[in-house]
Amino acid sequence: MQFSIPFSGRAHLYTDEEIALVAATARESVPLTQGYYLNAFESAFKIYTGAKHAFAVSNATAALEMAAQLCLFQPGDEVIVPAHTFTASAYPFVKQGARIVWADFHPATRVITADTIAACLTARTKAIVVVHLYGYGADMPAIMALARQHGLLVIEDAAQALGVRIQEHHAGTFGDFGAFSFHSHKNLSTLGEGGMLTVQEDGIAALIPMLRHNGHCGFADQREDYWIPAMGNVDLPEWRGYSLMPNNVCLGEVECALGAKLLERADRINREKRERALAVIAALSDIPELTFHCVTNERHNYHLLVARIAHGWRDAFIRTMANQHRIQCIVQYCPLYRYPLYRKLGFGAATCPNTDDFFDNMVSFPFHHALLPQDLETIVSATRGTIETLRTQ
Amino acid sequence: MQFSIPFSGRAHLYTDEEIALVAATARESVPLTQGYYLNAFESAFKIYTGAKHAFAVSNATAALEMAAQLCLFQPGDEVIVPAHTFTASAYPFVKQGARIVWADFHPATRVITADTIAACLTARTKAIVVVHLYGYGADMPAIMALARQHGLLVIEDAAQALGVRIQEHHAGTFGDFGAFSFHSHKNLSTLGEGGMLTVQEDGIAALIPMLRHNGHCGFADQREDYWIPAMGNVDLPEWRGYSLMPNNVCLGEVECALGAKLLERADRINREKRERALAVIAALSDIPELTFHCVTNERHNYHLLVARIAHGWRDAFIRTMANQHRIQCIVQYCPLYRYPLYRKLGFGAATCPNTDDFFDNMVSFPFHHALLPQDLETIVSATRGTIETLRTQ
Repeated sequence: MQFSIPFSGRAHLYTDEEIALVAATARESVPLTQGYYLNAFESAFKIYTGAKHAFAVSNATAALEMAAQLCLFQPGDEVIVPAHTFTASAYPFVKQGARIVWADFHPATRVITADTIAACLTARTKAIVVVHLYGYGADMPAIMALARQHGLLVIEDAAQALGVRIQEHHAGTFGDFGAFSFHSHKNLSTLGEGGMLTVQEDGIAALIPMLRHNGHCGFADQREDYWIPAMGNVDLPEWRGYSLMPNNVCLGEVECALGAKLLERADRINREKRERALAVIAALSDIPELTFHCVTNERHNYHLLVARIAHGWRDAFIRTMANQHRIQCIVQYCPLYRYPLYRKLGFGAATCPNTDDFFDNMVSFPFHHALLPQDLETIVSATRGTIETLRTQ
Repeated sequence: MQFSIPFSGRAHLYTDEEIALVAATARESVPLTQGYYLNAFESAFKIYTGAKHAFAVSNATAALEMAAQLCLFQPGDEVIVPAHTFTASAYPFVKQGARIVWADFHPATRVITADTIAACLTARTKAIVVVHLYGYGADMPAIMALARQHGLLVIEDAAQALGVRIQEHHAGTFGDFGAFSFHSHKNLSTLGEGGMLTVQEDGIAALIPMLRHNGHCGFADQREDYWIPAMGNVDLPEWRGYSLMPNNVCLGEVECALGAKLLERADRINREKRERALAVIAALSDIPELTFHCVTNERHNYHLLVARIAHGWRDAFIRTMANQHRIQCIVQYCPLYRYPLYRKLGFGAATCPNTDDFFDNMVSFPFHHALLPQDLETIVSATRGTIETLRTQ
């Protein structure tokens, strides 16, 4: 089907200045990876978010895979993960040997809380993955207090939450690890792929460059000649007595140069998206069949705009929006325990009534930054018309 | 030290047309990853190389990691790997449970042969990694005959060998898997990072998209509504009864668009590099202290230009080239069994006299495509002058 307003695989456009930077960096940068702009992007990211350490990587999954490695899971160890999230929030932890325990979310915010996490704790719990889904910041102070009380590691999946503030601090800077995404769908994208790993502990931060780049590192001793005994060293990253195998998850210089530049307008993009979201929510506030999550401050960047819809209305709504208005609404995120991947791995069971209920009765509207004002007006009027039609049926 | 001719971290420049393509794709492509240009690049790559199946990935290491997963190593299984190569040729196989057996190379070609492989065969050998190092194509017909005779899988690491022909066929298309690199150093680079995995078997090719992209796949049944039961499926890749965990190693659309375009001049870049290499080799042919590998046809793309130097001369030569001529020669590739990473993993032992001897007595000259004719003349005259100086000492 051809949609006049597709859900879109690209969140935002680039300015002429950003395109010129891409072209200039592609033309001139030596080298094209692991050079000046890598440091520039990481430095700018640390300044923007206040993160202690930040490492640019090929995508947010790579950030989560490295965080999962550094959790040092032992057989039987459990990780608490929300079931209402993208699959990459979860499977990297299975790859590193953890058993997943699915946490339900709070129906008002659609993110997990200290309470829903507490319900999942066992003697084998080792880590918690907190996902700031849709761009809303979970209650990190309460979650960190719970985690510290029980000696648990916390990984913030801030893939959708760049620039989100929770009590003045950026999402992704509370936990032991934070993962950010600059994928094509995100509020800021570094040419479609890209990510950032934030880290609290200095000892871990010292390991990340070699964990990210094939085990490459320096030599312990000062060298007189740059080629003796070799151009560089290759060593096995070790953390608390455990060996970790290296990866190759580097982000190119053009992406890094662009990422550093884009951070200058991160707050503006988020503010514009929030203002537009609040305008749509206000315009539809007299429709009781739709329930939005309304947040008027920087705790929500409205990466996505989703609503709960009256029970049983979802499919007719999306079908009418598509067929009559050519607007592509979608559903997300399918509870992970429903997917064959997690069922086959033994993680098909869960007690997450809010998660099930929301997915079966939710709508995600097209809401990328590149939408025009008239597109949003069209979405609002089509939504209103569709709801009115459904009421008469 | 400031070099007037550094070894360089960037192999080639982009044409105005290529830069314009980068800018246009960044500006217009929807989505910015996993879209039209991914297919375009893979199609162009299959046409160029003759590979049966080709999959663009984030880098060549990712290609090797997936190939290693698909080898289905069982405890005790061995993989034969040349020790004279980049570390990413080897460690992905360790990550998948294989034990490395280091193969020596032939001193004339510096790549492994059916004979040096045969010396490493045991009852536990399961796979062979053949590296077309420096851009010279190993003797794949002989190696494949040996592999088929013993029922072994063959992975070609063609990271440096794009466009190399071995008896009319492209390096990377003989084995069960081929890995190509478009890293900043390579003869063709997709903005600094990028790779391609080639695959022979249809059943494996069918798995790669989900193995590459988080386990995403379609639904078995035809769907009436695009959002039911979910927007997409997530399943566990399975091969011959074994489950494989997915990865996220996608290459962005800008890189793919550029990669497809660059393939148009792959043969020209390789030919120019070969002509320049042969000119340098000819200009230094009266110097018995330096031994180059001279190949006048498409079996060598001269990604790198290396020479054996008279025993005991290496360090003085590189030091003089650096200090007196500001030319940055380097040494590569340190025998992998010498690195702490492999020693700590239990792979510190090897019987590779040619590998040891070459590394300790070799020089790699600056030889990226962007060098100017006068740079090559400077390298030749400085080399000649340095050798003459060393003769008098």
